[in-house]
Amino acid sequence: MTNSPAGEEKGKEWDEGAPVPRTWTHLQMATMKALKTRNALVRECMAELLGTFVLLLFGCSAAAQVKTSRETKGQYLSVNMAFSVGVMSAMYLTKGISGAHLNPAVTLSFCALGQVSWDRLVPYCLSQLLGAYIASGLVYLVYYDAIMNFSGGVLTVYGPNETASIFATYPSEFLSLGGVLWQVVGTSMLMLCILGLGEQRNTPAPSDLIPAIVAVIVLGISMSMSGNCGAAINPARDLGPRLFTLTAGWGPEVFTCYNYWFWVPLVAPCIGALIGTLLYQILISLHLPDPAEPERVCCRTPGSRFENKGIFPFCCITMIRR
Amino acid sequence: MTNSPAGEEKGKEWDEGAPVPRTWTHLQMATMKALKTRNALVRECMAELLGTFVLLLFGCSAAAQVKTSRETKGQYLSVNMAFSVGVMSAMYLTKGISGAHLNPAVTLSFCALGQVSWDRLVPYCLSQLLGAYIASGLVYLVYYDAIMNFSGGVLTVYGPNETASIFATYPSEFLSLGGVLWQVVGTSMLMLCILGLGEQRNTPAPSDLIPAIVAVIVLGISMSMSGNCGAAINPARDLGPRLFTLTAGWGPEVFTCYNYWFWVPLVAPCIGALIGTLLYQILISLHLPDPAEPERVCCRTPGSRFENKGIFPFCCITMIRR
Amino acid sequence: MTNSPAGEEKGKEWDEGAPVPRTWTHLQMATMKALKTRNALVRECMAELLGTFVLLLFGCSAAAQVKTSRETKGQYLSVNMAFSVGVMSAMYLTKGISGAHLNPAVTLSFCALGQVSWDRLVPYCLSQLLGAYIASGLVYLVYYDAIMNFSGGVLTVYGPNETASIFATYPSEFLSLGGVLWQVVGTSMLMLCILGLGEQRNTPAPSDLIPAIVAVIVLGISMSMSGNCGAAINPARDLGPRLFTLTAGWGPEVFTCYNYWFWVPLVAPCIGALIGTLLYQILISLHLPDPAEPERVCCRTPGSRFENKGIFPFCCITMIRR
Amino acid sequence: MTNSPAGEEKGKEWDEGAPVPRTWTHLQMATMKALKTRNALVRECMAELLGTFVLLLFGCSAAAQVKTSRETKGQYLSVNMAFSVGVMSAMYLTKGISGAHLNPAVTLSFCALGQVSWDRLVPYCLSQLLGAYIASGLVYLVYYDAIMNFSGGVLTVYGPNETASIFATYPSEFLSLGGVLWQVVGTSMLMLCILGLGEQRNTPAPSDLIPAIVAVIVLGISMSMSGNCGAAINPARDLGPRLFTLTAGWGPEVFTCYNYWFWVPLVAPCIGALIGTLLYQILISLHLPDPAEPERVCCRTPGSRFENKGIFPFCCITMIRR
Repeated sequence: MTNSPAGEEKGKEWDEGAPVPRTWTHLQMATMKALKTRNALVRECMAELLGTFVLLLFGCSAAAQVKTSRETKGQYLSVNMAFSVGVMSAMYLTKGISGAHLNPAVTLSFCALGQVSWDRLVPYCLSQLLGAYIASGLVYLVYYDAIMNFSGGVLTVYGPNETASIFATYPSEFLSLGGVLWQVVGTSMLMLCILGLGEQRNTPAPSDLIPAIVAVIVLGISMSMSGNCGAAINPARDLGPRLFTLTAGWGPEVFTCYNYWFWVPLVAPCIGALIGTLLYQILISLHLPDPAEPERVCCRTPGSRFENKGIFPFCCITMIRR
Repeated sequence: MTNSPAGEEKGKEWDEGAPVPRTWTHLQMATMKALKTRNALVRECMAELLGTFVLLLFGCSAAAQVKTSRETKGQYLSVNMAFSVGVMSAMYLTKGISGAHLNPAVTLSFCALGQVSWDRLVPYCLSQLLGAYIASGLVYLVYYDAIMNFSGGVLTVYGPNETASIFATYPSEFLSLGGVLWQVVGTSMLMLCILGLGEQRNTPAPSDLIPAIVAVIVLGISMSMSGNCGAAINPARDLGPRLFTLTAGWGPEVFTCYNYWFWVPLVAPCIGALIGTLLYQILISLHLPDPAEPERVCCRTPGSRFENKGIFPFCCITMIRR
Repeated sequence: MTNSPAGEEKGKEWDEGAPVPRTWTHLQMATMKALKTRNALVRECMAELLGTFVLLLFGCSAAAQVKTSRETKGQYLSVNMAFSVGVMSAMYLTKGISGAHLNPAVTLSFCALGQVSWDRLVPYCLSQLLGAYIASGLVYLVYYDAIMNFSGGVLTVYGPNETASIFATYPSEFLSLGGVLWQVVGTSMLMLCILGLGEQRNTPAPSDLIPAIVAVIVLGISMSMSGNCGAAINPARDLGPRLFTLTAGWGPEVFTCYNYWFWVPLVAPCIGALIGTLLYQILISLHLPDPAEPERVCCRTPGSRFENKGIFPFCCITMIRR
Repeated sequence: MTNSPAGEEKGKEWDEGAPVPRTWTHLQMATMKALKTRNALVRECMAELLGTFVLLLFGCSAAAQVKTSRETKGQYLSVNMAFSVGVMSAMYLTKGISGAHLNPAVTLSFCALGQVSWDRLVPYCLSQLLGAYIASGLVYLVYYDAIMNFSGGVLTVYGPNETASIFATYPSEFLSLGGVLWQVVGTSMLMLCILGLGEQRNTPAPSDLIPAIVAVIVLGISMSMSGNCGAAINPARDLGPRLFTLTAGWGPEVFTCYNYWFWVPLVAPCIGALIGTLLYQILISLHLPDPAEPERVCCRTPGSRFENKGIFPFCCITMIRR
């Protein structure tokens, strides 16, 4: 990924610069100028959309591969690992632009903390949802042959040849309250564990490896808290594919099945994320010593943009500013 | 996780500061002041409690997921990996506060080394035990449906539908002395391998990746030394869940079974940790060259707090001070 | 890997230097001089050849081990992991010399970006192909006994005892368009995810861990997008071993089977890599803020070596110069 | 792992120092002085012994756990992973002292490179062998019950209940030349991949993560090149446990079986390591550009300790001096 040595030999040339830019270079620059987004919100929403797309493409593909190969080309663990790699890849791709939330519950938490403006909430969530929807569509397209071969052409939600679980999550049959609770617990663990990673007053992780460490935490959560009903600790990850299956032929059963289960992975992660954030603040952040840290954002200064907008304004979470 | 660009535009505002703080901001600050712990011991015990809670929640959930899904949603390896992720997450969350021992045997070793005051021993251990107990309770709550479905409603310690091993560790039937010995060996390997990670005079690991590296070592130990009787290299990890199962309906058999096995994972790890610490000191630490290192803590200066309190005072273990 | 202490004691000696170099030292230096490559292209091609050799040796050996042991000494996941370790090892070995493309599709993308000169394209690709061919030969040689034992001495492409899939990739029976599409999607994900890893304006990965992170991404892709037809996101990885099997006794069927499938893993990854590169530029790179970064290579300066040679010259991808 | 806050409060005390050291502190210091090794060779041999002990304890325990649990508590992959974790742990423990060779073939290569003095070769190898022997003994002791239970009390080398393969490696039945070749190839890949990790002129790995990266490479090799005959790319790892099984009741068959196979994992890795080292020098190291690097060790200065002692003196391998 370095320049070829020949380039180094001629390196002088482009320092001096050619005096007459040709017409097509002008054209090219005009195209660039036209394409370049100047609106920060649009840029951030594009990043969230792309990031969630990447996350779901990895994850749902792996689910399709394991399911349609009847576990000969991967097993349960592969799906968890693929989601985890998806988180890492998507974070490296978009964290510098939008913060790489990739998850409405995470966006909600950062809004509650006053780290992200509340007017970002809806655009971010819609972008994440759209990214998840598009990814599901692409997975369906490329695994079309395999899904048809596996299901015998009948797209169902129940039974041994069901394929709906490739996309969205569905509960075990015996599930009652536990499933709801698990989503709350899983998402609150997620927030509890990732909020402290950048905290300089505690044990900070290397800032350029945070995507990898978050990926490992997500892997851990999906290995330990997905038994009952899948690890949909992310409303966009669940609703996007579910909407896709609705439109792609699985029918309204994807929403009505298991006694309208679909609202659980929408609501529970949001509650869980808020609980996890509150727990982190009350149990950890509040008690940390308070060194003079110039890069800390004060969210309690009255009159500032952040003032009294957050739900959990007990204290600030120190983040590494880039 | 950066501020939204809109914030940067308005960034000036909160530098200037609004002159009149409103009433609820006062209220908020008063709440914060009231909640904030000023006592170091309380703060550290909260951290140990929370850390052990996180560790056990990951680990026991994974055990429950694997067991109740009859190994369709994970396998033996998943449990090992989940405990490993739990160690990493808990260490990032609490290492800067209490040192992230998460294990009475580790606390004991650090006391013996003179790195932690002896009067910390009991409070730390009780906090760890309580964290493990609470985590077990939460795992039971969320996996309640699955556990009942799996066991047919009968909570037992023996038999194919036993569920006690989700929480605490139980030996293989043929086990005699080996099981005791294994716990000693496993814990001494743990201490031997982690004590040197921060040693600047040897091959130090990156200080901000120590949680990840410790997690890998714990994974290795549980993959290689858990065959006979589980890898309970941690008395709190074993006693906390065992106490929970006692109170939650498994009955006193959890303590009496296998000829009162329960004391082995309590005593053996402590012996093992002390042996591992001693081995590290005698075989490695004592022979390292002794550069002028200002951040080294001298534990042999007479009259100091550390003086003659440690059991293994041959030499100091150099730790990176934060 | 440090010098032995004895060396330190005598360390002074070679600072002073012995006055009379002996004859064989002269000989030795002459040999070195004769062997040392001064031509940059030759050196880079050697690196690409060696890197692709290492990659394929890891990957195909694992495939042979899993196949010939009938999955008792590894499973599907092992093959994915071995390819991933191969990527990491090969990148550490050659990234500083040739950029460690290891893949004609990657080389093509870097040419299109103007980061690598177009006249490097063919030599690089041939080197990669040759490296893959030699690695296949070596795997065949060392697994000769095992392959013969497994296949009963008949080297075939179809059937339960086929061994051709140890080397090249073959599609599932039901595959039509999806297989082609998957290769496109998989390779475009690869480029999308790795192009941003060195981007200082976004979330850069640690430059000395990029080989490890690329390896994880490759692992994720092969776990999620290899279900239909293997994860041949690399034309050299597929054609090299396929040519070897042609010459080693599997016969022309390796090319003609599955309706001349062989051209798919040649063409699709190239298309995918170009799409991924374009997506990265349009969706991410173009919109990143533009700080004054002296180490950025300008690829649009007219008259420079890079001028209008790339296909995607919208903007430059910032790379860390070594 | 930091001091408790209470210590900070009293921190002044031991700066001032208590004026009268008590008697037992004198005693303690005398003990330390007596125990401390001043001879560098002894210290290094202790480190190699301990490192190889740790490596084998992880690896052989995992093999015993998988074997005696009949693959219910781990699978083939676990053994590979445990060896890998063992490599990492042992390297962090001893790399700063002896270089953490842990392998006679590696020591031989470093001697051939002139990086380690030839008179270190035999002491290092004997220490490694002894460490492997002791570790096997400990594994036997703690898995005694399980091994007896598994094998029905008969310790054999052949048959479904054989337990000799827990300790040393044995070939597949059909193996002829391939097995010998594999050991050569595997060890030469090992050397090829690890020699460049510290090379500043190429793509250096982070020096404090080299143990982790070497561990991943070892994992890759054992996943891909252990199919035929185990991945004994290390003579000490094989001979030590084999000698132990000879003395512990498996009888002389451990040496005579498979047509005196035992010499292959002794000789082949050494040949492979030398080939890998030579390949690295001729294909990579020789062609790297030669910046002014003050920390580079010159091994060709006549009259120096390193002069004409190495077998491969074409060029030096740059290592990061600590």
